[in-house]
Amino acid sequence: MSLEFSIEQTNGKARAGRLETPHAEIQTPVFMPVGTIASVKGVPQDTLEELGAQIILGNTYHLYLRPGVETVRKLGGLHGFMTWNRAILTDSGGFQVFSLSQLRKVSEEGVTFRSHLDGSSHFFSPESAMEAQIGLGADILMAFDECTEYPADRARVEESMAMTARWAARSKQYFEQHKHRVPWSQAGAEALERPARQSSAPNPAKAGRNSEPFPASGSPRLTNASSPTYAGQTQSLFGIVQGGMDPALRKESAERTIEVGFPGYAIGGLSVGEPRELTREIVRSTLEHLPADKPRYLMGVGTPEEIVEYANLGVDMMDCVLPTRAARHGLLFTSEGKVSIKQARYARDAGPLDPNCRCRVCQRYSRAYLRHLYASNEVLAQVLNTIHNLSFYLDTMQRVRHSILLGEEYRFLSGAGLDRNLEL
Amino acid sequence: MSLEFSIEQTNGKARAGRLETPHAEIQTPVFMPVGTIASVKGVPQDTLEELGAQIILGNTYHLYLRPGVETVRKLGGLHGFMTWNRAILTDSGGFQVFSLSQLRKVSEEGVTFRSHLDGSSHFFSPESAMEAQIGLGADILMAFDECTEYPADRARVEESMAMTARWAARSKQYFEQHKHRVPWSQAGAEALERPARQSSAPNPAKAGRNSEPFPASGSPRLTNASSPTYAGQTQSLFGIVQGGMDPALRKESAERTIEVGFPGYAIGGLSVGEPRELTREIVRSTLEHLPADKPRYLMGVGTPEEIVEYANLGVDMMDCVLPTRAARHGLLFTSEGKVSIKQARYARDAGPLDPNCRCRVCQRYSRAYLRHLYASNEVLAQVLNTIHNLSFYLDTMQRVRHSILLGEEYRFLSGAGLDRNLEL
Repeated sequence: MSLEFSIEQTNGKARAGRLETPHAEIQTPVFMPVGTIASVKGVPQDTLEELGAQIILGNTYHLYLRPGVETVRKLGGLHGFMTWNRAILTDSGGFQVFSLSQLRKVSEEGVTFRSHLDGSSHFFSPESAMEAQIGLGADILMAFDECTEYPADRARVEESMAMTARWAARSKQYFEQHKHRVPWSQAGAEALERPARQSSAPNPAKAGRNSEPFPASGSPRLTNASSPTYAGQTQSLFGIVQGGMDPALRKESAERTIEVGFPGYAIGGLSVGEPRELTREIVRSTLEHLPADKPRYLMGVGTPEEIVEYANLGVDMMDCVLPTRAARHGLLFTSEGKVSIKQARYARDAGPLDPNCRCRVCQRYSRAYLRHLYASNEVLAQVLNTIHNLSFYLDTMQRVRHSILLGEEYRFLSGAGLDRNLEL
Repeated sequence: MSLEFSIEQTNGKARAGRLETPHAEIQTPVFMPVGTIASVKGVPQDTLEELGAQIILGNTYHLYLRPGVETVRKLGGLHGFMTWNRAILTDSGGFQVFSLSQLRKVSEEGVTFRSHLDGSSHFFSPESAMEAQIGLGADILMAFDECTEYPADRARVEESMAMTARWAARSKQYFEQHKHRVPWSQAGAEALERPARQSSAPNPAKAGRNSEPFPASGSPRLTNASSPTYAGQTQSLFGIVQGGMDPALRKESAERTIEVGFPGYAIGGLSVGEPRELTREIVRSTLEHLPADKPRYLMGVGTPEEIVEYANLGVDMMDCVLPTRAARHGLLFTSEGKVSIKQARYARDAGPLDPNCRCRVCQRYSRAYLRHLYASNEVLAQVLNTIHNLSFYLDTMQRVRHSILLGEEYRFLSGAGLDRNLEL
């Protein structure tokens, strides 16, 4: 089995579970830091490990454009390429195609779009999105979907949702036929062997040098590409429920996606500009239609208070750029509320950023120092701010899990103000 | 004693020594990473510790402008402000005033200059530069000097050198009268107590929160401001030899600086645009006039091959922005020569950056990954590149020291090409 999900404990609608993937067992509910192009911006991989990140997310759209799927595949997939040996999930590319690229043209076949980097033209279909994600080699990949814009009328949402359902079936079919080609499975590693040797052949001296201490050129150390651990294991494909802000269409989308059949289900198409209340309502109603014995992934949310709320509603997996992006804007989440570290009031504040946080930033640096780094535009500001915000999110989710196991409900102290307007 | 220097072993002109400062014992010859405004750009302090940095440098000019001396002083000096508990050296501000600021006006009294940040007008004299450096609280501070421009005629160099000698005497006098005010000495900590309490008084709730786990507001954890360790200890002031590219004027400058009397001597005014051969010649000839029993600090050089060469000539301390600045430009120093990581040839190179390096970057990441980070303008590129380059410099200096102790001469393998043209 390449994916096993078991629920250890439920508490109301919340669940504490374990998700076994080829590279790691994940304790759920889990927050997944976003590592857009194979890097969680500013944070070295060993620091991510230290923070307790169990699974990180890569963006297929970004990685497809740069460095390109073939480069990542040849280096053992994302695990080998970025030397991250815990779990990875890649999104379908659908959301970025819709939010970042210009001049996209959608047809039943797929999406033609222009790169936000250089304007070059590209095409994603369910099949090519699967091909890309197999080459990237994440533990979990996502069916290709259309992220419906907001607002949209019912006819448009229905049509879009129906196409996503058809794309889900095509995604699954292509994936099932090609999943053995993942770079780190036994078969994948063998398929990889030939081109890798060819590419190093023109320069034997260099290949020789690279082979020590690396095991062999083309197969970097940490991929375990030929390790029996991954023999016969494959990636797992999750389906995505769309349906806009219409509970009935969400229900229909859930039913049609479940009919295709996946080992896990995501709720997509939220955080696209709708009011928060509406997000909550749609999450709540959609969750009712997802199977209880499969992992449920809510894509792209949210604030610290929201991730707690959604975990309490029965969501098992979440990702969001908020902790990392806010960090780059000097906006820090703490147990006492949000801190905008750029403010002059912190210039001589000798206290820690968050007295209740045990991350290496709060254990060592003062608010005054963090404020100075930010005000001086020092790169270390981004590094330290990101470490803290991720620590806050990951710790929050761990506490939620702990509360579920204890049969309690986790809540932030009132007045933390973490949920207030976040304009970055 | 606040500074003790002992020579363990000599080997030709090279010396392996120990320099005891209030915050750390330093093994020499030593390379000092540059932490311009209280941050070695992109590298967290614990990583610097891991790399074996024994002493880092802060730039008085930059710190004076931002965050300002008073802020640093109130937070326990640079050690407390940046929570770095090993040794620190601050430069005099002279070099930056001459290289960065606009519209400077030099008189016997001092230098009026405009901030490169906002154009505001400021004045540095030997006395105010000492006052600033006492507030910053480094273990070693530097006399205020004029860095003579290159090229300059003999009369100009002589006049400038003579003024630097007079400024050295004024620097020493002011320092001796005020050195008890350093933030971390017993007296300094007591003097600090009052303003710190006052500043926290308006907001008792906040002061109360900050006092746990921090010992007291205004005196952050890691300064040990009131620790008996530093009781009665002070900073140490080094003199700077100038004299342009004229060996006779260098000799005279050395003699006049020694006559003032300092526990250590620096060679300044080099790397100002002169040819490398000339730098070497001046270093060589100036060293002959410096006392053998005092530490010798060569300011602002150089390439990896140069720092080895200068250590072999008897220099004990060096600093340079090259490893950190080159890292930001993707130029990496390795045991096999320079690597410009941006090059497309590394796009699928699965080997480590330097197979002979044991830094955490070379132990984990491939050239392909580092190339991808750099090409994608990811912040992690700067972080990892800087860690490696600093590791290379620090390891190189450690190997030089080891060679001196063994009675051997350390040399790079021929063809490493580390000394070639470095245009950033």
